[in-house]
Amino acid sequence: MRVLMIGDIVGRPGRKAVQELLPYLLHEYRPDLVVANGENAAGGNGITPPVAAELFNRGIHVLTMGNHVWDKREAENLLEEEARILRPANYPDGTPGRGYTIIRVKEDLQVGIINLSGRIFLSTLECPFRLARLLAEEIRATTRMILVDFHAEATSEKVAMGWYLDGLVSAVVGTHTHIQTADARILPGGTAYITDVGMTGPRDSILGVKTEIVIKKFITQMPVRFEVATGPVQLEAVLIDINPDTGRAEAIQRLQLYGTS
Amino acid sequence: MRVLMIGDIVGRPGRKAVQELLPYLLHEYRPDLVVANGENAAGGNGITPPVAAELFNRGIHVLTMGNHVWDKREAENLLEEEARILRPANYPDGTPGRGYTIIRVKEDLQVGIINLSGRIFLSTLECPFRLARLLAEEIRATTRMILVDFHAEATSEKVAMGWYLDGLVSAVVGTHTHIQTADARILPGGTAYITDVGMTGPRDSILGVKTEIVIKKFITQMPVRFEVATGPVQLEAVLIDINPDTGRAEAIQRLQLYGTS
Amino acid sequence: MRVLMIGDIVGRPGRKAVQELLPYLLHEYRPDLVVANGENAAGGNGITPPVAAELFNRGIHVLTMGNHVWDKREAENLLEEEARILRPANYPDGTPGRGYTIIRVKEDLQVGIINLSGRIFLSTLECPFRLARLLAEEIRATTRMILVDFHAEATSEKVAMGWYLDGLVSAVVGTHTHIQTADARILPGGTAYITDVGMTGPRDSILGVKTEIVIKKFITQMPVRFEVATGPVQLEAVLIDINPDTGRAEAIQRLQLYGTS
Amino acid sequence: MRVLMIGDIVGRPGRKAVQELLPYLLHEYRPDLVVANGENAAGGNGITPPVAAELFNRGIHVLTMGNHVWDKREAENLLEEEARILRPANYPDGTPGRGYTIIRVKEDLQVGIINLSGRIFLSTLECPFRLARLLAEEIRATTRMILVDFHAEATSEKVAMGWYLDGLVSAVVGTHTHIQTADARILPGGTAYITDVGMTGPRDSILGVKTEIVIKKFITQMPVRFEVATGPVQLEAVLIDINPDTGRAEAIQRLQLYGTS
Ligand SMILES: [Fe+2]
Ligand SMILES: [Fe+2]
Ligand SMILES: [Fe+2]
Ligand SMILES: [Fe+2]
Ligand SMILES: [Fe+2]
Ligand SMILES: [Fe+2]
Ligand SMILES: [Fe+2]
Ligand SMILES: [Fe+2]
Repeated sequence: MRVLMIGDIVGRPGRKAVQELLPYLLHEYRPDLVVANGENAAGGNGITPPVAAELFNRGIHVLTMGNHVWDKREAENLLEEEARILRPANYPDGTPGRGYTIIRVKEDLQVGIINLSGRIFLSTLECPFRLARLLAEEIRATTRMILVDFHAEATSEKVAMGWYLDGLVSAVVGTHTHIQTADARILPGGTAYITDVGMTGPRDSILGVKTEIVIKKFITQMPVRFEVATGPVQLEAVLIDINPDTGRAEAIQRLQLYGTS
Repeated sequence: MRVLMIGDIVGRPGRKAVQELLPYLLHEYRPDLVVANGENAAGGNGITPPVAAELFNRGIHVLTMGNHVWDKREAENLLEEEARILRPANYPDGTPGRGYTIIRVKEDLQVGIINLSGRIFLSTLECPFRLARLLAEEIRATTRMILVDFHAEATSEKVAMGWYLDGLVSAVVGTHTHIQTADARILPGGTAYITDVGMTGPRDSILGVKTEIVIKKFITQMPVRFEVATGPVQLEAVLIDINPDTGRAEAIQRLQLYGTS
Repeated sequence: MRVLMIGDIVGRPGRKAVQELLPYLLHEYRPDLVVANGENAAGGNGITPPVAAELFNRGIHVLTMGNHVWDKREAENLLEEEARILRPANYPDGTPGRGYTIIRVKEDLQVGIINLSGRIFLSTLECPFRLARLLAEEIRATTRMILVDFHAEATSEKVAMGWYLDGLVSAVVGTHTHIQTADARILPGGTAYITDVGMTGPRDSILGVKTEIVIKKFITQMPVRFEVATGPVQLEAVLIDINPDTGRAEAIQRLQLYGTS
Repeated sequence: MRVLMIGDIVGRPGRKAVQELLPYLLHEYRPDLVVANGENAAGGNGITPPVAAELFNRGIHVLTMGNHVWDKREAENLLEEEARILRPANYPDGTPGRGYTIIRVKEDLQVGIINLSGRIFLSTLECPFRLARLLAEEIRATTRMILVDFHAEATSEKVAMGWYLDGLVSAVVGTHTHIQTADARILPGGTAYITDVGMTGPRDSILGVKTEIVIKKFITQMPVRFEVATGPVQLEAVLIDINPDTGRAEAIQRLQLYGTS
């Protein structure tokens, strides 16, 4: 079973990268399941029904989110109604939407997907470690193939999650920093791991935002209005092969593609 | 002119990685200048005279530091006396040691090295952007070949520094997160850039520390005593080729080596 | 029913303030219950068995703690064995010690005491709001007189806790900032509230620490070894009168006493 | 020479408190100079020309600001043109507006006013300590009467500033937490000090904001739109008497007034 996990899609350039480059990936690698982090998909912040629809139409099966999940007003209803969009599971009880799902990818194959948020430098949420274990054990009653998107800032917290879940889930992939890391590996227990999948959006930018705007903010400490950058795009992702019988990852491969637009 | 920049060396395993793998790198790539981040070289935190001496003996020419610079008592005197060890230049006026240096690598080649610290999620220091520009312009009176080690946490701040200094310095390399990133590139103005060079130390660890200790901390929120992990080691670095006439980078290559020990 | 709640006792000077001034308070105001925050009682950080014993001998019935709870090694055993010392209840499951207690103050009077920690700028713990309500409702099966020590940094979080628990508990008193606030009041539902009770320790200090050391740290950004200040002492506290039948607070009075030593 | 310093004025209720209660204060205490923190004066966030004009018309001579200084677009021009509005002086070089001023209060009396921001838990700005000393020494060439509004979060940083400037300025008054502290005193060198002056605005609120909104945010971790609370208002301030010959404070008095509206 092969999963393609795409890093944070940023705004229109990110969606153009998906439009232009996902067909190639689908044809070339024939993933059974395509997951993407969509927290920045709508104008750089949050998600809306049309943006989600567009991404599902392109071939993405499940969207995960992160700290930007509620940036767009429509998100609350959208996540209540759309089971294919996840938000971090460690938001408090009563939060709209869901933090994990089990999706059928072939007649006989199901994959569990868990979305979690880190707490270091980020949000005051429930403990992602304890919840990850709880949810993983619950999902394993149905399937041993489990993918975790751990949306977090600190490398220590992300690497710790990989080791903590090693052997319990098929893959722990980090998102949020928008920079792909070069540490993809299979941990000893069979869990594929990468600290960050990276960003899908404008290449000449600061995490997707126009460089001059972010620099101005750092230099002047004045408020700025972030704008998604333009120019050539990139798509960053990982491809993970999972043994359906054991749930163990057999391979993880980093992907960095550049679009013509 | 070829520079080898080695990511944060962590404790004894990190020094063993240097001992075992640096000779190969020196032989294979023949760098003219070897710089390494040494903020974790002594027992995982800080630097001491014998540890610095050991690293210089192995062939490292300059050590940069970061937020752990003062963890060992001996560091204050050491940095006052040893011009080959830098601490972030944006510490306040009056801080012991120096934040940049110009080193002669061949009879006719000089390279400026600047060490800076980020402020996001890290330390309340002087603005690293303004200071970087100031120092770079000062050093350019002597040489156009300038290497910046930007020791910082947030990817946004690091990428912003790359774009901010593009064309003014030869390379901006990030350190501190201990995870190598997969975004090495030459920016349009000729500055080599990578968000993080990575870590030199025990491979099966959380940023160099024993996995079970860090996980215990996250799960229990109790204080723990960090211990450097054991087992097989890695050395992470980048190799940068700089045109001595223009100061522009001509190539940047990520390196990840694994030791037998 | 009258409760005396004493703000963070800092080191030997704090304990001297208790020794010198608590007898006067006991005689003058005749509280039925004396609670004190003891997170800094041992040398400025944490608690030890002899220090706890000393404070209990002086007439304190219950000690609450905060972010410094584990600073001393002996604390884990101490809190496991000593039911009169509380640590924030919103530490994760499995944490040594307990976060609340019910204490009998007269034959027919019982008071519940809950210790909680804030999360803003402080610690990544469980939600103190949800847990406060849960615990308060549980304790109300036994007694309506409930005192909450909310150990937190941000005024917003502390004031919010007051309003959130108004009518459910008898008092919400803040600790941790070491500066007494001038906002003691009875909220409309009958809950006594103050953002911070203040500090019991050396008066001419920065939160109990020698002024020159803290200033040096801010100016130089170098590591320093904190030392408890010397000189004249203060004891800061609040006195709360609670109606035993309704659990409603009838009065809250700020106290600031200065010792001769 | 008598200065009235009014704590953060929050929105319309804060301005109503000024309208209703400042005439009484002017009549009763006859201050020579009235300073107020205006960072929340316009709708709870920032300042606009009409709001500033209204406050100047009521008898306020100088407005200080804080982290909300740029929340309203009009602020940049306003602070460039209006010398009676200060923003923290430790914003970087090139920031619009000014961080200190010297104001003539009688024919023969001038007072220097410095606005500074803390860095702990707040903003990445220049060192407020070093700058405070620099500006104070500069102003003392003209007058020894100097008032510092230190807009900061952490009590440690604020108390440290008081001790650091003791004897160099007439008063260090804290703002930003919106809760008045009970620690007003004259430090040994003659500097009046209080950690926080408090808030001028709706009394039954969380720092001026509707209680249910802030509580919802803490409980749900969902984004909320802050609204200034309604109901009875308060005005919090301090009154400081300064010896014009020495610049030493002779008295500091906390004020908490409640309006009928
Ligand atoms: Fe993102
Ligand atoms: Fe994110
Ligand atoms: Fe490091
Ligand atoms: Fe570091
Ligand atoms: Fe404390
Ligand atoms: Fe504390
Ligand atoms: Fe304010
Ligand atoms: Fe503020």
